[in-house]
Formats: sequence, C-alpha cells, structure tokens
Amino acid sequence: MAKIISLSKRRGFVYPSSEIYGGFSSGYDFGPLGVEMKNNIKLAWWKEMIKKQNPPAGGMVGLDAAILMSPKVWQASGHLTAGFADELVECKSCHKRFKADEIKQKVCPECGGKLTESRKFNLMMRTFIGPVEAEAATTYLRAETCQGIYVNFENILNSMRLKIPFGVAQIGKAFRNEITPKDFIYRTREFEQMEMQWFCHSKEAIKYFDYWKKERVKWYLNLGIKKENLRIREVPVEERAHYAKQQIDIEYKFPFGWKEIEGVHNRGDFDLSNHSKYSGQNLEYFDEETKEKYSPYIIETSGGADRSFFAFLCDAYQEIKGGRTKTTKAAKEIEVLLRLHKTLAPIKVAVLPLVRNKPELVKKAKEVYQLLKPHFVCQYDELGSIGRRYRRGDEIGTILAITTDFETLKQEDVTIRDRDTMKQERVKIKDLIEVLKEKLEI
Amino acid sequence: MAKIISLSKRRGFVYPSSEIYGGFSSGYDFGPLGVEMKNNIKLAWWKEMIKKQNPPAGGMVGLDAAILMSPKVWQASGHLTAGFADELVECKSCHKRFKADEIKQKVCPECGGKLTESRKFNLMMRTFIGPVEAEAATTYLRAETCQGIYVNFENILNSMRLKIPFGVAQIGKAFRNEITPKDFIYRTREFEQMEMQWFCHSKEAIKYFDYWKKERVKWYLNLGIKKENLRIREVPVEERAHYAKQQIDIEYKFPFGWKEIEGVHNRGDFDLSNHSKYSGQNLEYFDEETKEKYSPYIIETSGGADRSFFAFLCDAYQEIKGGRTKTTKAAKEIEVLLRLHKTLAPIKVAVLPLVRNKPELVKKAKEVYQLLKPHFVCQYDELGSIGRRYRRGDEIGTILAITTDFETLKQEDVTIRDRDTMKQERVKIKDLIEVLKEKLEI
Repeated sequence: MAKIISLSKRRGFVYPSSEIYGGFSSGYDFGPLGVEMKNNIKLAWWKEMIKKQNPPAGGMVGLDAAILMSPKVWQASGHLTAGFADELVECKSCHKRFKADEIKQKVCPECGGKLTESRKFNLMMRTFIGPVEAEAATTYLRAETCQGIYVNFENILNSMRLKIPFGVAQIGKAFRNEITPKDFIYRTREFEQMEMQWFCHSKEAIKYFDYWKKERVKWYLNLGIKKENLRIREVPVEERAHYAKQQIDIEYKFPFGWKEIEGVHNRGDFDLSNHSKYSGQNLEYFDEETKEKYSPYIIETSGGADRSFFAFLCDAYQEIKGGRTKTTKAAKEIEVLLRLHKTLAPIKVAVLPLVRNKPELVKKAKEVYQLLKPHFVCQYDELGSIGRRYRRGDEIGTILAITTDFETLKQEDVTIRDRDTMKQERVKIKDLIEVLKEKLEI
Repeated sequence: MAKIISLSKRRGFVYPSSEIYGGFSSGYDFGPLGVEMKNNIKLAWWKEMIKKQNPPAGGMVGLDAAILMSPKVWQASGHLTAGFADELVECKSCHKRFKADEIKQKVCPECGGKLTESRKFNLMMRTFIGPVEAEAATTYLRAETCQGIYVNFENILNSMRLKIPFGVAQIGKAFRNEITPKDFIYRTREFEQMEMQWFCHSKEAIKYFDYWKKERVKWYLNLGIKKENLRIREVPVEERAHYAKQQIDIEYKFPFGWKEIEGVHNRGDFDLSNHSKYSGQNLEYFDEETKEKYSPYIIETSGGADRSFFAFLCDAYQEIKGGRTKTTKAAKEIEVLLRLHKTLAPIKVAVLPLVRNKPELVKKAKEVYQLLKPHFVCQYDELGSIGRRYRRGDEIGTILAITTDFETLKQEDVTIRDRDTMKQERVKIKDLIEVLKEKLEI
C-alpha cells in the first residue's frame, strides 16, 4: 500500500491535494498520468454503457446533471433525514469523535476516556446560494449523482422518445462529509461516481438485477482485474441502504482488505414515487401497449471512479525481485511492473533513442515521436541506459516501447518492445501507425 | 434564443435543473444529446492540448485536481479579498440587490426606489468540512480550476521530469455565487472550465501570449464557428482581472450580443510567487542549462465548456423557411438544420427503415443498427414518414442517415444520406463501417 501511494506521487498518478499547504481534508489530485488513466476508465465505462450495451430489450442514454440541485431533492430522497447519517460517539475526555460501528471497545481509542452515547451526524455538505449569506438559500453538494437522473426522468423519457425498459448513465462528482476519510483514494469526501439507473416494470426487477450484477462483474474482469481478487457480497437486510430491496456489493481485495468498489441495488419504486409525492408531479409511466400506468422500479449500478482506479492500480502492481532480465547492473534490485490493461494504461507508447549521445538517433526518435503523438498518448525519454528507460516505462504500465537504433538509420525501421513479454520486433516506420493501432486495439 | 432553449429541452440537449421542483438557482442539466456533445467538445479540447499540441518548444500534460482545496489557496490567490468580488447596490424600498455596473440610472430597476452606495460581495461559495459544523473547517468550492495547477506545480515538474516551457491542461467544474445568473447556460453559478496554464520565462511571455491567442481562435474556427461571429477584444487595463498583465477576450456573437467565451491572460509571476509566499515553499524554477533561478510567468487560456457549447449550438442553428425539399407536405413549414461540426455532433448516424410496416425492412434496419452501435453513436428511428425522420435528424445535427429499403433485401446495401448536401449514395453493408469511419473522420 505504502509503495503504491509512493509510486503514485513519484510518477504523477495521484498527489495529495493542496500539499504545499500541508494537505487538505485527506483529498487527492490526479496528476498527468492519473488523469489519463481515470479518463480511460470513465471512457471505457461510458462506451460499455452507452454504445455497446443493449440488454435484453431497451436502450441506454447519458446525462450530466448539475452538482447543485434544489434542496427539495434531498428532502424527497431521504438524505436530509436519518437515512443518510453516521452514528458518532464522542470521547468525554479528549472530545474526539468516532464512527460508532468502528469502536470495538467502549472506550476512546485515542486516550481511553469514556464515550458518549452515539448520535446521528448527517453527511450532506452545505452551501449557500444568493447574494447575501444570511438571506441566501441553503443547499447541498449532491451526495449521489443518481438523484439528477430521477428528477429528469420525465424530461429524458419525452425528449428521447424512450420506452421502458431503458437506462440512464451518468459520471460525476459527489460529496460526503465523511468522519474518517481514509485508505488513500478509497474513502474521500469528494469522489467521482459512475452510476447507471435502469427503469423497468416491477415484475422484471429481479431479472434485471441479476442481469446487471453479472454485467458489472464482467466489466472489471474484462479490464484485467484478477478473478481471485473480486467477489460478490450479498448485503444482509439490516446493512442495506434505506432505499434498497435487493443489494449486492462487488468487492475488491485491497491491501487493507475486501472492500466495495461497486454496488448493484434494486431500489424498487422508492425514488420515483417519493419525487412524485414531494414535487406534486406524477412520475408514473404509461405503457402504450398494455395500457398499464405504473411507477417504474429502478435497478442501479453504482460504481466509484476513484475506487475502481485504485483497484486497477493495485491489481496491476507487481514486484519482481532480482529483476526481469539478468543482464543489467540493476538485476539485483526490485523491479516494478504495472500490468495495466491496454485500454487503461495512461501512456501507450514510449519513444526512445538507443543512446543519447548520437544526434542522428535522437533526431530520428524525435521524428518518430512527432509522427505518433497525434495518434497515441506517447512519451519521449532519452535519460539513462536503455534498460533503465524500459524499466521506467514498465513501472507506469507503458504498453510498447519504440527504440531507434543504428539499423534505423539504414533501414528506416525501429524495434517495438512489448511490456509484458519483453519481446522485440522490427517494424518499418512507414507501417508503424497501423501496427501500433492493431497492437493497442485502437 | 427562445427557439434554441426550446429545442434544447425538447430534443434532450439541456434541461432546467431540478425542474420538477420549480428549478433551482438558474442551473441546467445536460440531457442525453447534450452530454454527448459536451463530451465531444471536452475531448476535442483535450486532444488539441495534450496530444497534438507541441508549441515552439516544450510539452503539455493534464491534471484533474479536487474541487475542494485548502482555504489557504484562496487567501494566496486573492479570491477571498477585494479582487474577486462584485459591487452590489441595494434598493432601499424593495431591498433587491443588483450589480452596480449593470445599473444605468440611479434608481431601482424593479420598483424605482432609491439605491444604497455599492459594496463588495465575494463570489466564493462556502462549505464546511468535518464532523460538526460549529467546529468544522470552512472551505470554498473552487472559483477557478487553475489554482489546482499552481499548487501542484512542483509535483508535476518533478514527477514528469519537465523543463520550462511546458503546459498543464485541466477540465473541471468551478463555482461562483453570481448575483444574476442569466442568458441560459452562459452565466451560471456552477460551470465547467477548460483551462491551460503555460509556464515560461518572463522574457518569452509576450511571445507565448501571442502564440496561444492565435491557437485558441483557430480551435473555434476549425470546429466550425463562423469567422464573422468571432472576434478578439483587447481588454483595457482598468477592466483586467487582478492578476493580468495582458488580457484578451475571445468573443462570440450570441443572440444577446458579443460575449466572452474564452480569455487569454498573461498572469506574470503573480500566482507562483504568491503561493511561494503564503505556503513558505520555494516555487522558483532552476534552469539546469543557464543556471538561472526564477519565478516562471504563466500564460493562461481559460475557456468555458458550457459557453463554447452554447456558442457551437447558436452557430450551427439554421432555419430554412419553406423547407429544404419541396416534395413533402411539410414544405411550407420552417425546417431546422443544426450544422454541427462532425466532431461535435452528438449523434453521428441514424438508422431508418424506409417504411415501418414492412417487417423485413425493420429487421434489416435493426441488424444494421446493432452492427454500427459499437462503433458510432447511433440512433434508430422508425416513427413517421422518411422525410419527417430526416428532418428530425437534421434538427439535432445527425451527420449521416442510413436507410434500408427494398433494394437492401436484394443487394445487401443501404443508402447513406448526408445532412448538409442531402445527397444519397448506396453502400454495401459489408463496407459500411469503413465508409462511415472515413466520412466521419474517426
């Protein structure tokens, strides 16, 4: 875990937020490699949901709702009441607060003092809209993106001429005033969700719950997560969210234990009927064919972009003691290999001159770099021995390394080295873009 | 303008936020077509900046910093002081508040009452972090994304082994407690920025300011904005932002007048030297070659994703009185054509059976739709006459319409109809993916 956090900072995946000011709120920023990888995850999810997905029937569309919504939304959703709160206890001596369910003994874990009875603490983050705070409207940063989908149900249905069943997918930031943000980017107060809401008839809810559960597990496996590190947990009734009729967690085996990375929920008609009630708008659906009018059930798949980022990173991380090749001085060191799926790796291609002190090789490498840059996310690297540069690429998961060598000058070809097999092959520069597209499946 | 707002809602581009609760804070949500188009804009910008961009020297990387940062960031940036505030006046009779610079006479525009002297109102939106509000840390929703880049300057420099000059690009939400959000999605309290910060030596600042000014204008023109609707305004000293040494606005001719859609700023060393001062961290740059140590200058390009979305929409909108063809009943109606650039159009391909009541044609069209869906953003439409469906596609900017007709059943080919020329050609289904990729330049 410490090694992954260190690598993340050192190589530009994830930095502590506001670090020059001593950090803030256990928040994190995605660096140059992190943002590319996170964008790759989000795009892979979006494509899966919007472009490829065509479940038994129905279609799928996207949405991008605002973070700031009417506070009435959160009254209707139950987030402002007891349903969305943590039980906290306070130490009577040091006055620190802790999550009640994380306290194993009945004393303060910090100073051993006596604890108060637990009380509810709401997780919504408040802000104010309007010119003067005293008179301004209070509202909240959204605690989940899905509410933006529910309040737009009618607008989406009408403008897109959809018929039930159909789905709406959305990616966006959400905020929860967690008592104990922890475990790197696993639990943070600001986070990004990838949520899909599937609207269906109540009779079909169980079928679709099962369908989406399988689909979502498949997605992680297809993007390279090892089978033994993924499991489904049936969430028992007493642990379920306040809206959930059925609930499973997809869990990943993090260095700090099995933890949820995505939930699949059968929310019943909780959301649409509550929004009908609170807004006074009838959000029932009328089925033209059966002439039935009903409040649709919702099957939700709720994943975290940061959590899956972290899971992909952990799963790809591998240390090779003694090194992968025995030919360099570094052979006795530990080498790090990040076996990221080719869809997710932030850098697809590295371009390297074999040696730095031959201007012709450097010039040629820079030409190749310029050639490839508009087509692939590339890096140019000339510092250090070629072996060291290969390892620098392996450490960040770069899929392919292109090297210009002395043969290049005669034959207009380069070597392509594969991250995983370390095999090298020679390819003509004129064929390079096509060959790389094929290898990278772009 | 009213027509564009109406089209936006009716066809799924932009909905009023929290509409079932009477709306909220003049906010907006991007619907299924809106989110695709906005993603296309953001991706086009990202590709331009990160992948293709290679200015006279230097490189470009991305970042995705958190919305919530340390409040110290906003002290250092000057946002908590007078520099980032609106001058407000209040009506002594009705107590409504107005922006001082928007008041033409000295009386209340609502009730004619007398106005107070103007006073400053800060635009930052507050929130609270931590378990109990009274004891919690106050912080702010970021008012501009660029501060996340400045506080990560050292981390980016070190982890990416960059040399000055280089740039950092970022897309993300920002929030300002505007007094008068207005003009649809032009001025909203929550908005999305596309900002790039170019770090350079002070001696080169004027050169790069000029370079980026031209580049950014080119970007809008390349994506189809009409030349006559775009202009550069040199911002006079008294109107400039508190950090700007040089400032131009790129303005678009909206239905409500010429308005800024992007700014290019020479921020001098204001940002890095202030963050050095407030954080106690030395953020100067050491040039290995010249052995010079200096505080870099920053050239910023600051664009709005929502504003450019709006500009692209306005620019593409065209009404054709009497219709484009004279062959249908609808010929006397006004037809709407949305001439969006092929990179930006939310739907690339529509698939249509010539008529709905021939099961073979419908079946074939659905097969073609399934074939194309993994590769292009597609829509299937079978309702109404073929002419009506073409117009429905034209109205949302769909580039190509594929029709299955009776010939299709014999020859395994379809017609492709071009949105702009309305020309049709027949293409074999087996060649369809390749032909479409070429036409759409994907």
